[in-house]
Amino acid sequence: MAKEEFTVTPYEVKGRVDYVRLRELFGTQELDALLLERLRTMAGGELHPLLSRGIYYSHRDLGWTLDQYAKGNPFFLYSGRGPSGPLHTSHLVPFDLCRWLQEKFGVPMYIQITDDEKFWFRPHLTRAETRKWGMENLADILAVGFDPKNTHVFFDTRSIGAMYSLAVDVGKKIPYSTVKAVFGFPPSTNIGLVFYTALQTVPAFYPSWVSGRRTPCLIPCGIDQDPHFRVTRDIAEGLGYPKPALVHSQMLPGLLGERVMSTTGEQKDNALFLNDSPKEVERKLRKAFTGGRATVEEQRRLGATPEVCSVWAAWRSKFAKSEAEFTQITADCRSGALLCGDCKANLIDRVHGFLDDHAKRREQAMGWAESLIIERAPAGAGGSAPAP
Amino acid sequence: MAKEEFTVTPYEVKGRVDYVRLRELFGTQELDALLLERLRTMAGGELHPLLSRGIYYSHRDLGWTLDQYAKGNPFFLYSGRGPSGPLHTSHLVPFDLCRWLQEKFGVPMYIQITDDEKFWFRPHLTRAETRKWGMENLADILAVGFDPKNTHVFFDTRSIGAMYSLAVDVGKKIPYSTVKAVFGFPPSTNIGLVFYTALQTVPAFYPSWVSGRRTPCLIPCGIDQDPHFRVTRDIAEGLGYPKPALVHSQMLPGLLGERVMSTTGEQKDNALFLNDSPKEVERKLRKAFTGGRATVEEQRRLGATPEVCSVWAAWRSKFAKSEAEFTQITADCRSGALLCGDCKANLIDRVHGFLDDHAKRREQAMGWAESLIIERAPAGAGGSAPAP
Repeated sequence: MAKEEFTVTPYEVKGRVDYVRLRELFGTQELDALLLERLRTMAGGELHPLLSRGIYYSHRDLGWTLDQYAKGNPFFLYSGRGPSGPLHTSHLVPFDLCRWLQEKFGVPMYIQITDDEKFWFRPHLTRAETRKWGMENLADILAVGFDPKNTHVFFDTRSIGAMYSLAVDVGKKIPYSTVKAVFGFPPSTNIGLVFYTALQTVPAFYPSWVSGRRTPCLIPCGIDQDPHFRVTRDIAEGLGYPKPALVHSQMLPGLLGERVMSTTGEQKDNALFLNDSPKEVERKLRKAFTGGRATVEEQRRLGATPEVCSVWAAWRSKFAKSEAEFTQITADCRSGALLCGDCKANLIDRVHGFLDDHAKRREQAMGWAESLIIERAPAGAGGSAPAP
Repeated sequence: MAKEEFTVTPYEVKGRVDYVRLRELFGTQELDALLLERLRTMAGGELHPLLSRGIYYSHRDLGWTLDQYAKGNPFFLYSGRGPSGPLHTSHLVPFDLCRWLQEKFGVPMYIQITDDEKFWFRPHLTRAETRKWGMENLADILAVGFDPKNTHVFFDTRSIGAMYSLAVDVGKKIPYSTVKAVFGFPPSTNIGLVFYTALQTVPAFYPSWVSGRRTPCLIPCGIDQDPHFRVTRDIAEGLGYPKPALVHSQMLPGLLGERVMSTTGEQKDNALFLNDSPKEVERKLRKAFTGGRATVEEQRRLGATPEVCSVWAAWRSKFAKSEAEFTQITADCRSGALLCGDCKANLIDRVHGFLDDHAKRREQAMGWAESLIIERAPAGAGGSAPAP
């Protein structure tokens, strides 16, 4: 990717990303109007805002997955989180879509908490921290509204007894050279991280492995995670499992502007964390980067630019409650009718309401999160899978 | 090791090994007369033939381990097996010594069955095969005479729930570059095998991790396995565990002569398998390579050369029942009093008797082998270990 002005790997995003070009580079398909309409029809006439507003914009094999569903072979959903700190609202992008898909299609959800990976990846992170953040993050994810009767959790260090047999099969199929090329790992990379992609592959095959039936998998994820699952897709058929399908989202700009990707250390103001106090939310949004003009007079006259604005991105990805509201905000921004200060005040109210509700749902989820963690594979799992 | 005429790694032994030179290259200590006498005294006046006859000839930190034992901090024993086929008598070299040490020192034994590693290492081996051979090999190992009340088994794919937490800590400490340098892995090596050395390290730390007390570990192994444990020793203190001590044996020559190392495929006649029929034993030993002369007359006159003889190696490593008998066989061989045909006939009888007894002990061991497999770490394990 040397000639591009941006770099996107699962471990690094640099530069201003041209998403169309990135889709071409990665060789994925466009999530086009035809496919979106098909989704809308199958979902009973609705489309999730993350789909209708173009945040999910790319896919692999989504059409085939819907074909299988129509033929009576429903997919399951899989997404995950590497627990290294608190979640912010952008972390919910894959889970918001999963929750909606679970509700509309009645399918199982598998959540992976990769506490091993984060420990291996971050030099100074301890096991106690990854375990603590794993449970905290899981509660936040479940609070999105998953159906506890149809949701399962791989918490890597606690679920390894169920996962390892499949990880051993997967690990044999992936040469070091592939991992090196895909992730750009230097020789100093620890052997845990080198092995890790085998574990990230396990949930994609697990329901097929357990049932002995080829079960389609659909993975909503940021497009930066695509390389992980390209490895998974490359080995799937060789192990007798269908290739997982993917729907890819763009990465959302941070509150400090889209050139700042980090949300750690001094860049904590770049995101709204799910445990931010109302005052913190207000402070962060008041200083958030917008597409506004230098003066009120100029903005009234020329309008603002929503496409570069982090506040507009928040309305777009999560906080506008209807298409009508979102269209109105966008139009008023562009025309100059809505000033940034007012727009921010509206968003602050909306975020406060959301975080209040979220905290309540999270409290409830804490009560049953433990019970969703898979600790052992069912007896007979892997029995009818093809011998690798 | 380019300048030497031999190569020794855990995955390859090539050329005629100069064991003194190998010890120097690896930087291990000589298992000298002083240390052997100390062992004899502590063991109540006896020395196992594998020690007294020089098959174990090298060590790391054995003296320190005995110091700790004398101070009331006893070691535990650890050895293992990669299950890819039936065991032969030479495979018992580490386990025979472990059994004796367990008896004389009253210490726990940990056996690791690395069914994951063998699956990763051998391209055509299936999971069903490694699992089957794992249980078969385990029964053979236990039949050596371990105390079931003081013996524990890590069967990797079944024990991973107990092992993984520690493997995660270990994996973070080992860069890929180390594994590449130590094992000489090419880039096509699968990521399972790259990660595997973390799992081979786990048993060496496990009792310390479980108890929260620095527990010395003693590993009897072929000197070709030393590089694995050099990695383990390098990271031990950084994780708060003592470096495991090692006693190293020479590799025994095969029945077809010492330049043939393999015992698979067409080289099955190179070893006495524990499930060989009496006829097979006779056939293999009759054609075994010896240090005899071209004619009987010449041998009567000049004597034979025990040092190059595979039959003498079998007496030496396992089948001579006393020092007196071994000394007699060696002297009669060298003088010409004992001809190869007679010596072989004696050994055939001895091996038949051993395999009969072994089969009975194995049958018994099959009854309790399962019960020794560690499936979960005790509650609270790792609690008092230092945070990595």
